[in-house]
Amino acid sequence: MRGIDIHTHVVPERFPPYRGKATDVPWPGMAPADACHRHVTIAGKHFRTVSSQCWDGACRLADMDGTGVERQVLSPMPELLSYWLPADDAAVLSRYLNEAIAVLVAEHPGRFSGLGTVPLQDVDQAIAELQYLVQVLGLEGVEIGTNVNGLPIGASQFEPFFAAAEQLGASIFVHPLRPCGMDRLVGPTALEQVLAFPCETGLAAMSLITGGVLSRHPGLRIALSHGGGSFPALLARYAHAWSLFPALREGVAESPFDLGRRLYFDSLVYNETLLRTQIQLFGVSQTMIGSDYPFVIMERDPIARLTELGLSAQDNEMLVRRNALRWLGRDEV
Amino acid sequence: MRGIDIHTHVVPERFPPYRGKATDVPWPGMAPADACHRHVTIAGKHFRTVSSQCWDGACRLADMDGTGVERQVLSPMPELLSYWLPADDAAVLSRYLNEAIAVLVAEHPGRFSGLGTVPLQDVDQAIAELQYLVQVLGLEGVEIGTNVNGLPIGASQFEPFFAAAEQLGASIFVHPLRPCGMDRLVGPTALEQVLAFPCETGLAAMSLITGGVLSRHPGLRIALSHGGGSFPALLARYAHAWSLFPALREGVAESPFDLGRRLYFDSLVYNETLLRTQIQLFGVSQTMIGSDYPFVIMERDPIARLTELGLSAQDNEMLVRRNALRWLGRDEV
Repeated sequence: MRGIDIHTHVVPERFPPYRGKATDVPWPGMAPADACHRHVTIAGKHFRTVSSQCWDGACRLADMDGTGVERQVLSPMPELLSYWLPADDAAVLSRYLNEAIAVLVAEHPGRFSGLGTVPLQDVDQAIAELQYLVQVLGLEGVEIGTNVNGLPIGASQFEPFFAAAEQLGASIFVHPLRPCGMDRLVGPTALEQVLAFPCETGLAAMSLITGGVLSRHPGLRIALSHGGGSFPALLARYAHAWSLFPALREGVAESPFDLGRRLYFDSLVYNETLLRTQIQLFGVSQTMIGSDYPFVIMERDPIARLTELGLSAQDNEMLVRRNALRWLGRDEV
Repeated sequence: MRGIDIHTHVVPERFPPYRGKATDVPWPGMAPADACHRHVTIAGKHFRTVSSQCWDGACRLADMDGTGVERQVLSPMPELLSYWLPADDAAVLSRYLNEAIAVLVAEHPGRFSGLGTVPLQDVDQAIAELQYLVQVLGLEGVEIGTNVNGLPIGASQFEPFFAAAEQLGASIFVHPLRPCGMDRLVGPTALEQVLAFPCETGLAAMSLITGGVLSRHPGLRIALSHGGGSFPALLARYAHAWSLFPALREGVAESPFDLGRRLYFDSLVYNETLLRTQIQLFGVSQTMIGSDYPFVIMERDPIARLTELGLSAQDNEMLVRRNALRWLGRDEV
């Protein structure tokens, strides 16, 4: 049992009541459901029904034992990142979530690592919380959205945050959130996470290249969820255009694929051909297990998906475990 | 010399003056540049400088002779699709473009096939123009945008158009246009076509599946530009979710990959690994040459990109020629 799953989510068992000064704030809450479930509410309205797997460490360990996952990297359910809250309120919620994740890690330090959240709608407060969660709480880094109220993460406003993350050695996990393209969907609401999410992630990752974040901060360890979504297709077209258009080379001196290979990717592409493609494009050193545990869309046996590729034992060990350790900045656990 | 390039664009040498009744209509025009170039204007403002390759058949033939392309499938420069014009004005412009393309084809019927355009902002007029361009002008079909003023092509409003296209046996080439995600780009304006285009195309293609178009019209022959852009990543995630979420299976009875394999794709992904992936996912029967001739971003030797894959002579013949003939609904030319 040696797998490290870097894409698993947490919802705390309860939320504190809203104590801020604003009105109509979309603050999260919990309402009882059956014995093993609770309803997450946002501003009092039902958002999603979640199971105790979201907050119960023992429950998670039992599931991990069943699939050979030695360690889960915990991150908040993305909707909780709450970039749309007043910054002071988001700072309070971030602190609460970060403490809750730190408690889970402290109870099972051999089985969990933690990624927190920071209120990126206020970069100064985000940096302060990043320092706290890394230096005081001992979390490994943060989950961030692909955009902050519509502004992609590669925008210059976020430069101080990435500089701080590099300096602190914090791991960054990029997860889609409030994606673009919602008006291009024809069908049920689930298509937001199914289709708009992977499009959005590719654009966010490209903004880290075109905005110069990856060039300026070669020490950053950034992982993309869902295998980067549309990123491979976008990067290939961009690399071609970069070779032709001088305007694209301004500020992006390194070759796009050299920059793209600095990123890490989870394995959550749900297709063997695409998983092989990802490994071929970015190297066997850049893919790690990602499952989306414990949500319905999760990959139930993520280690099997990697082992079924039939790569060498050494490569498999990188995919299942060693790349995640490197991304987390950890020595062998 | 046997290649058929299904992704090449045309701009006519001149445009008629605007004779409609509206004001501030973004009508195209041409302004002189140097001997071989003209400036395309939209509402009098510079849009793009294009070369005589855009309208001069002899010039195109010389280029085709150089790269082994026997036949180009001509389609309008996408900006000319003009879905944002008043429908009556767009009908006039569509007719003008369709006639111009028909003239090029008539001059070199052994070297050109033609795709026209229809004013999809008015589905009834679009169907009337589709009938005219197929039955009177003898064009092979149409180029359509990925969305019509923000409405994705899989939306129910366009159902009568697709029904008519299937009945007429018209080939459909889907090209990105006015893409979503523009607010997610960090960098020069060229990123619209470089990054937002491939995202948009994947979403549009998915709307043909989730909106039921491909299920209702199995006879449609639809090709996606740029290898479908983000489509492979989106389809794989959708296929997984479709197997889990009953809401996604409502109205989509066939497996997502079975539907996806009804689509055709050009080869314009600018990356050998991605090109192999596309062929593996959708079959050697579904990929065709696409170059984006004569624009700067074009693939200069598209036949070489396919031949370099080292597939069997039979498979190469399909990729370079036979799939395009089948998509065009033509017997051997």
